[in-house]
This record gives sequence, structure tokens and C-alpha cells, in this order.
Amino acid sequence: MRATYLFGAGDVRVVDVPDPVVQQPTDAVVRVVLACVCGSDLHPFRSLPATAEGTPMGHEFVGVVEETGGEVSTVAPGDLVIAPFAWSDGTCVFCREGLHTSCLHGGFWAADGIGGGQAEAVRVPLADGTLVKAPVGADSALLPSLLTLSDVYGTGYRAATRGGVTKGSVVTVIGDGAVGLLAVLSARQLGAERIVLMGRHTDRTDLGREFGATDVVAERGDEGIAKVRELTGGHGSEIVIEAVGHLPAYEQAVGIVRPGGVLSRVGVPQYEQAPIGFGSLFGPNVTLTGGPAPARAYIETLLPAVLDGTVAPGKVFDQTVSLADTSKGYLAMDERTALKVLVRP
Amino acid sequence: MRATYLFGAGDVRVVDVPDPVVQQPTDAVVRVVLACVCGSDLHPFRSLPATAEGTPMGHEFVGVVEETGGEVSTVAPGDLVIAPFAWSDGTCVFCREGLHTSCLHGGFWAADGIGGGQAEAVRVPLADGTLVKAPVGADSALLPSLLTLSDVYGTGYRAATRGGVTKGSVVTVIGDGAVGLLAVLSARQLGAERIVLMGRHTDRTDLGREFGATDVVAERGDEGIAKVRELTGGHGSEIVIEAVGHLPAYEQAVGIVRPGGVLSRVGVPQYEQAPIGFGSLFGPNVTLTGGPAPARAYIETLLPAVLDGTVAPGKVFDQTVSLADTSKGYLAMDERTALKVLVRP
Repeated sequence: MRATYLFGAGDVRVVDVPDPVVQQPTDAVVRVVLACVCGSDLHPFRSLPATAEGTPMGHEFVGVVEETGGEVSTVAPGDLVIAPFAWSDGTCVFCREGLHTSCLHGGFWAADGIGGGQAEAVRVPLADGTLVKAPVGADSALLPSLLTLSDVYGTGYRAATRGGVTKGSVVTVIGDGAVGLLAVLSARQLGAERIVLMGRHTDRTDLGREFGATDVVAERGDEGIAKVRELTGGHGSEIVIEAVGHLPAYEQAVGIVRPGGVLSRVGVPQYEQAPIGFGSLFGPNVTLTGGPAPARAYIETLLPAVLDGTVAPGKVFDQTVSLADTSKGYLAMDERTALKVLVRP
Repeated sequence: MRATYLFGAGDVRVVDVPDPVVQQPTDAVVRVVLACVCGSDLHPFRSLPATAEGTPMGHEFVGVVEETGGEVSTVAPGDLVIAPFAWSDGTCVFCREGLHTSCLHGGFWAADGIGGGQAEAVRVPLADGTLVKAPVGADSALLPSLLTLSDVYGTGYRAATRGGVTKGSVVTVIGDGAVGLLAVLSARQLGAERIVLMGRHTDRTDLGREFGATDVVAERGDEGIAKVRELTGGHGSEIVIEAVGHLPAYEQAVGIVRPGGVLSRVGVPQYEQAPIGFGSLFGPNVTLTGGPAPARAYIETLLPAVLDGTVAPGKVFDQTVSLADTSKGYLAMDERTALKVLVRP
């Protein structure tokens, strides 16, 4: 089959690899119907050292089950399924607590011998725990929105719930990428009253307004901090969602958050050290939370409103490429000519 | 009157200063009955550059109201009162939320023209918001325990509540100082099932056991981390309270905390930068919380069990000095021959 591999910074190729097959009785093989490129794929796209063997890419996909191992009971060949960005058994102590990204027996796509989602097919380990069947066909117009449940919608929702968003909350979202925009949508669903979106791309922030942002702040740094403080009564924002991952965005979040407030991170940090002492988090009693979202935990919660059309998170996709053209999708996102790119094998 | 001033590292002197007087109609003047030295006083004691004017010291005291301004209504001359370590109006938006340390009109002792608690008397601004009357006399045997409500008990309680301690929790407390020990006491009060205390001073950890610690780990660093993980089922401790403030203690906390767990800090951080990226907090979805405890918020909650003798947090005091000998108290705590020292003017 054909699969997307990254051979070094900027070097995306679609190559021939062996067809995935059921190896364990708990495996399923899923034929990918729709995949996409993630903002986090851009980090290795910009920095991966060149390698001869390459690394498979993609961790978001919906597809049709082609074959299952003897112990798989919750999905069957022909089912349309959603794959969250981590695979997990659904039964260990962490999965039972809803922290599927820390599953004792789970792992991530495109690692440890498991392929990536930007491919014609994927072997899914622990299929019962990992996959969620959606009651639609492979030609459904809902597929892009269902695909967001693999990662970006669940991640935005996680950011909002970990931030403690509830009816009447004041929330600021830093970052107008797909995760930031779906954090806006999630905050609105959870009842936030005021949602300030910080972003500089009008086409994206317009979608943010459609998703529920009440204010947009294009300024960054000190100017942006002052603007948000002004909009939120002078003391800062109760909840700040950081959906970027770079240190300046974290520092901006620290500047914006209200004493006693919560800083909820979902942008994968591209730093290890950062200020958390008296002058940043400690003095004003700010709580820092977040991490890789256990997207699996939220699929059943978020699915109904997607199916009945109450929300359309799939609007974050503004470009589609064929599998052969996946590299063009990376380029479009890297150059910000696309917000998020669908890959159709 | 006589008051304790620090004139540089190691240079504690008790000096003559003008008697405090009511300056604002919301002020009270309190004659100090009992004060003490705080672990956080040791930071400037070890590092303050020499100054000619010196800086007043002490932020924990109980005393008798001597005089009140015309607008003070909740305390009257003759009342025995507890002063929390921050003064606050009790009415601003942050006080109403229980975050008195961020009071819009408040401040801290020994700063901005307000004296310190290690003195014969103190001018208390915003007396109605700040002071809490205790129904005991100035000769009560309960005074040491009541004095812990100024800071260390409230701080330990804050650490436990922010950590989310509840019935059945597994908690690890790093640090066997007074705050760590009272975090143990608080965790027990809140129903924690397993409380691991990390500390190396047997006399202190013995008191920790009396306060409710189920296990004591004397090892530090990697060895200590391994020991705590072993004691807590292999995955780490749900809640870790960091009651030291130095970077190695924070790093130890990161090593101990369970995926999805909470790291609650109350040791005043002696660092600004620390690891919070994928390899420390983000990857395992760990929440970092804490800050200066709004001790005022907890006095009414914690007072009854102190008054009826259910708890005796005053046991953290193991030495008493007269005001004239305050410098000996600093030395004893610095050399760890005392856990916490009472100062009796």
C-alpha cells in the first residue's frame, strides 16, 4: 500500500510499504477513508534530521474496518470507525480514569512498529479499546467533522474542561489554529459567557467568531496582554487556554491569567524550562494544567452534536489533497495558506 | 517599643522603634502576645544584603487589641485576635473568592510602612477584614495552636485542598518543616488514606506520624522517588505536596507524581524557571497548583477543631525565646536544632 513518510525536514514522500495485517487477536486493520495533517506534524516537518528509513506520519483518521482479530468484539468488518490519536486498551487503571494517553498497554500511531494515519490502511492494536463506531457510511458528508474527534476537537474540548470552563466563564484562547478554534467551540458548548480569541489570521478568527468567540485580539506580547486585561475587567482572564506550544505563547498566557485562575495548555510545548516561580504562577496562585488530550475519552460525549449537526467542527478543514499530494498539504499548512488539510487516500 | 529587624544576612537585632498608632479609621493596634519565626524568614536571614535601616520581621502573631479606629466594628479593645500573614479588606472581588493574598487593597506585614509581627505591637490595617477574634484569653494554653492559623496551618491546609485531597486520597508530602507536617495533619483531616511524608529528621517525622503520616521516606532524589513509587502502587502519588521551595524538591515532586495527578506547591519557590515541558508535567497530564495561602480564608474553618482540642497544630513549636532573644530563634531554626520557634514579647 501507499503511506506517507517523513525523511527529514521538508521531505515528505508517499512510498510503498507492506499492507498491514492482523498480527494480534486484538488487532483490526482499518482502510483509511479520510486522514489529515496536524499542526503538531509541522514540528518534525520543520526540524527532523534526515534519515534513510524515514518515519511514518499521521495520527488522525476515520476509516472502514477491513479485518479483525479473533478477540475483537466491538467493531466488525464494514464498520465506519473513528481512531483517536492514541491507541489504548480501555480497561487499565488510567483508561478507567479517562486518561487514555497514559494507558499502561497503549501507544501512539507512527511509532513502535505501528503505521501512521496518512496512509491507505492502518493496523490498529487493541481495537476494542481504541476504535469508536460511527453510525454513518463511508460517503457521509459528516466525515470531516467526525475526523476532528480523532484529535483536534477532543483536544480543544480537553483544554476547556481542564480549564474548568462552565456556565458564565471568561476564557481567553491563545492561538487561532484548529485546536484553538475548537477550544473556542468547546468553551461555548460548556457555557462560557465571554471568549476572547487571540489570533492574527482574519479568516481563522472569523471562523472563531462563528464558533463562539465574543472578542478577537490580534495583538501579541505586552500589547495583547493589555488588550485582554482591558476586555476582562482589568484583572485578567479566569481561564487561559494555550493552544500554540511555543514559549512566547506560554509567557503571554501567564501575563493574561487572573490571580487564582487556570492556565490550560494543549499546544505541545516546544520548550522544557519555563517561568513558574513567584513572579509568574506562584505569587498569583495560578494553576497550570493540560497535556496530550485523551481524545478517546471524549468521543462518545461529543459525537451526538456532530451527528445531529448542532456543531460542525469539520469547518476547520479548508483544503483537501489526495494521498499522493500529502506533501502539498504539509506545505500549505507550513506556509499558512491552509488552516488544516484533509488527506483523501 | 521593641521590634525585630534584619540588617543583613545573619544580623537580627531587636531595636527601639516608635509605638504603632491608629492612622486610619480602619486600623487597629494589636499588642503581640505570641509571635514566631517562619521557615520563609530564613531565606532573607541567609541572603539579605546588609542595609543600614534594616527591615522589620515577622508575619505571624496573635495578640490583644489595644486600640481601634472609628470604622472598626468586628474587633474591640481587649479581644484576643489572630492575624493572618496577609492583611486584606475581606470585601474585594478576590477576598470574596477566598483569595485574600490577592486583595486589591491589602498587603503584607513588614512592608510598605507596616511593621512585622516579631515586635511588641503592630498596626493592623483593614482590621475588620484582617483579624479574627478567638474566644480565649491571653493566657490560654491554646495560643500556640491558634498562632499556627496565622500561616503554617492555613498553608498546609491550602496545600491539601488545592491538591484535591479527599476521602481515600493517596498523598505524598515533601518536606518535614512545620508546613509539611501541617499539610500531613490537614490531609488526614480531609480523609486521605495514605500519607507518605518525605523527610530526614526523625523528631520531625515522628510528629508527622502523630499528625497522620502512614509512611515516612528519608531518602531523597532518585532513591526517594523509587521508594515512594513502590509505596504507591508503582504509578506514583495522586497528589504531591511540595513544602520546601527549592528546585530539587520540585524535581522530586515531578518524579513522584502519578500521571493525571496534582503537584501542589506551598514552599515559596527559590527559583523562577523549572521544567514543565513534555518530559515533566505536560506528557503525563500533571496539574501544577499552589501559591501563597490565603490563610485568612481558612481561619473560621480550622478554628473549631483547634478550640475543642481535636487537633493540636501548635506541637510544631519546640522552642520559645523572649523577644530580646529572637536572634537565637533564627539561629536555632537555621541550624535545625529547632523545628519552629515561638517568640514571646
